[in-house]
Amino acid sequence: MGIVVVGTVAFDTVETPFGRGENVLGGSATYFSTSASFFTDVSLVAVVGEDFPQEHVSFLQSRDIDTTGLQRIPGKTFHWSGKYGYDLNEAQTLDTQLNVLMEFKPDLPESYRTADYLFLANIDPDLQMEVLEQMDRPKLVACDTMNFWIQGKPEELRKTLSRVDILLVNDAEARQLSGEWNVVKAARKIRGMGPRILIVKKGEHGVVMFTETGSFAAPAYPLEEVFDPTGAGDTFAGGFMGYLAGALKPDDDTLRRAVIMGSTLASFCCEAFSLDRLLRLTRAEIEERFRLFKRLTHFEAA
Amino acid sequence: MGIVVVGTVAFDTVETPFGRGENVLGGSATYFSTSASFFTDVSLVAVVGEDFPQEHVSFLQSRDIDTTGLQRIPGKTFHWSGKYGYDLNEAQTLDTQLNVLMEFKPDLPESYRTADYLFLANIDPDLQMEVLEQMDRPKLVACDTMNFWIQGKPEELRKTLSRVDILLVNDAEARQLSGEWNVVKAARKIRGMGPRILIVKKGEHGVVMFTETGSFAAPAYPLEEVFDPTGAGDTFAGGFMGYLAGALKPDDDTLRRAVIMGSTLASFCCEAFSLDRLLRLTRAEIEERFRLFKRLTHFEAA
Repeated sequence: MGIVVVGTVAFDTVETPFGRGENVLGGSATYFSTSASFFTDVSLVAVVGEDFPQEHVSFLQSRDIDTTGLQRIPGKTFHWSGKYGYDLNEAQTLDTQLNVLMEFKPDLPESYRTADYLFLANIDPDLQMEVLEQMDRPKLVACDTMNFWIQGKPEELRKTLSRVDILLVNDAEARQLSGEWNVVKAARKIRGMGPRILIVKKGEHGVVMFTETGSFAAPAYPLEEVFDPTGAGDTFAGGFMGYLAGALKPDDDTLRRAVIMGSTLASFCCEAFSLDRLLRLTRAEIEERFRLFKRLTHFEAA
Repeated sequence: MGIVVVGTVAFDTVETPFGRGENVLGGSATYFSTSASFFTDVSLVAVVGEDFPQEHVSFLQSRDIDTTGLQRIPGKTFHWSGKYGYDLNEAQTLDTQLNVLMEFKPDLPESYRTADYLFLANIDPDLQMEVLEQMDRPKLVACDTMNFWIQGKPEELRKTLSRVDILLVNDAEARQLSGEWNVVKAARKIRGMGPRILIVKKGEHGVVMFTETGSFAAPAYPLEEVFDPTGAGDTFAGGFMGYLAGALKPDDDTLRRAVIMGSTLASFCCEAFSLDRLLRLTRAEIEERFRLFKRLTHFEAA
């Protein structure tokens, strides 16, 4: 039981047509673990600098997230700056300051190594592999990546992919990784690289999951107010993996519900800046929106 | 029973990364009526020129489409030229020759006027209104439009909209018509203009229907080969309206299945140039893909 996640804990500066958040809490591992913490135990592996306030660590701990693996080293915390236009589907990166991330040597606490579930958030595939190798045979490994690694470290990424069960990427990344424009063809190629399950995230257009038994498509929840989509992909992954980790077995029905749970959490994430909406999210709200997803997509076959 | 459709019958010249079709049969009314003819009687109102070959008329008649309302007048048939890149979601119009369309005065045969269903395909809203006024109280009126009319004839379009039950447009058109970027807000505004049902078509990303009871989202069928999406929107409308016309009453369940049927027909349309795939499409294939849509979207609520 329980999920280990390796990824970034960061400061974000984000501008959208609806406002601006400066040096707010962000990072793939932060969003993932907050989201997954609604469903299961989460253990975090990441690095921050001396400037990272204790209150953020306390926040993670308040969600029962194990921060034993959160290293604090000399230097400044990773900082990402980005901007969204009215088309909230695509961020424009304004600045990336890797800072302490350049010195990151993941070192898993002994207590982490026997976890059943592992999520390798979007970081250097070499680091993803180092974490993977410190684990003691996890039952299920999922991973994310991005254009920067697909282009810059293709060999290393392929090595990681050969050992993961589930890959989560957006549609542009799926196309780049496979060299195929058509997403169905892209999925077949990528599934040939190792992951038996591919999840293609399309932002406001939803998600498609490709498995050995076929495909499953889920829309995004139609939101009337989208304030800030930053972290929605990692929040999706957290809801998805959290639901899987809490379920009895990851059969096709469970995987489908996990996709809907990921979409549910991601929809809340977009409703406010940073993790603000997730902070005050209740289990009752999650269950209600999950039910609305059923209503949103259901039709009788005849 | 039965649907009257007014729209274009045209020659298309289409280029995609997979080939080129020159002066092939096209037009909104052609795609619509071919698609709807799988489900119900269709009566066509359109205009062609002296250059329009009898074989195309015979084809429509072979589908039991009533062509009494297809006028043939001096001049050349409407001709559209367009091009698609690998992103098959968006056509680039290269040339539009209205030709006989500029002289079009719809004159409904007496036998058409009592039909229960009316589809006003994308043409001048003044012409849409003329057809509407010649009808003897249809039970259900649906309509399509485009940026050209939203911008060029806003008053006339508003008049038409005030008298239709269902509007079908793509997401960019919904935004332009409403002045709202957010599709949920756009839907509320547009439904305030008259149509109690709005269907937003998003190409490869599927469809969202907004009604008084909420929204219904359906993905597009994940195709491995998309050759030519020309006509997919009108083919969707034909499957949607055809299914409705063949059903007992247009309640929420029926509307949802009609959306899936529209998506089913549209997916076939994209598999070949012009109407080629629809020509050899069988009822068994339609039923099989409708079932696959259920499999593609279904999840158990708990």
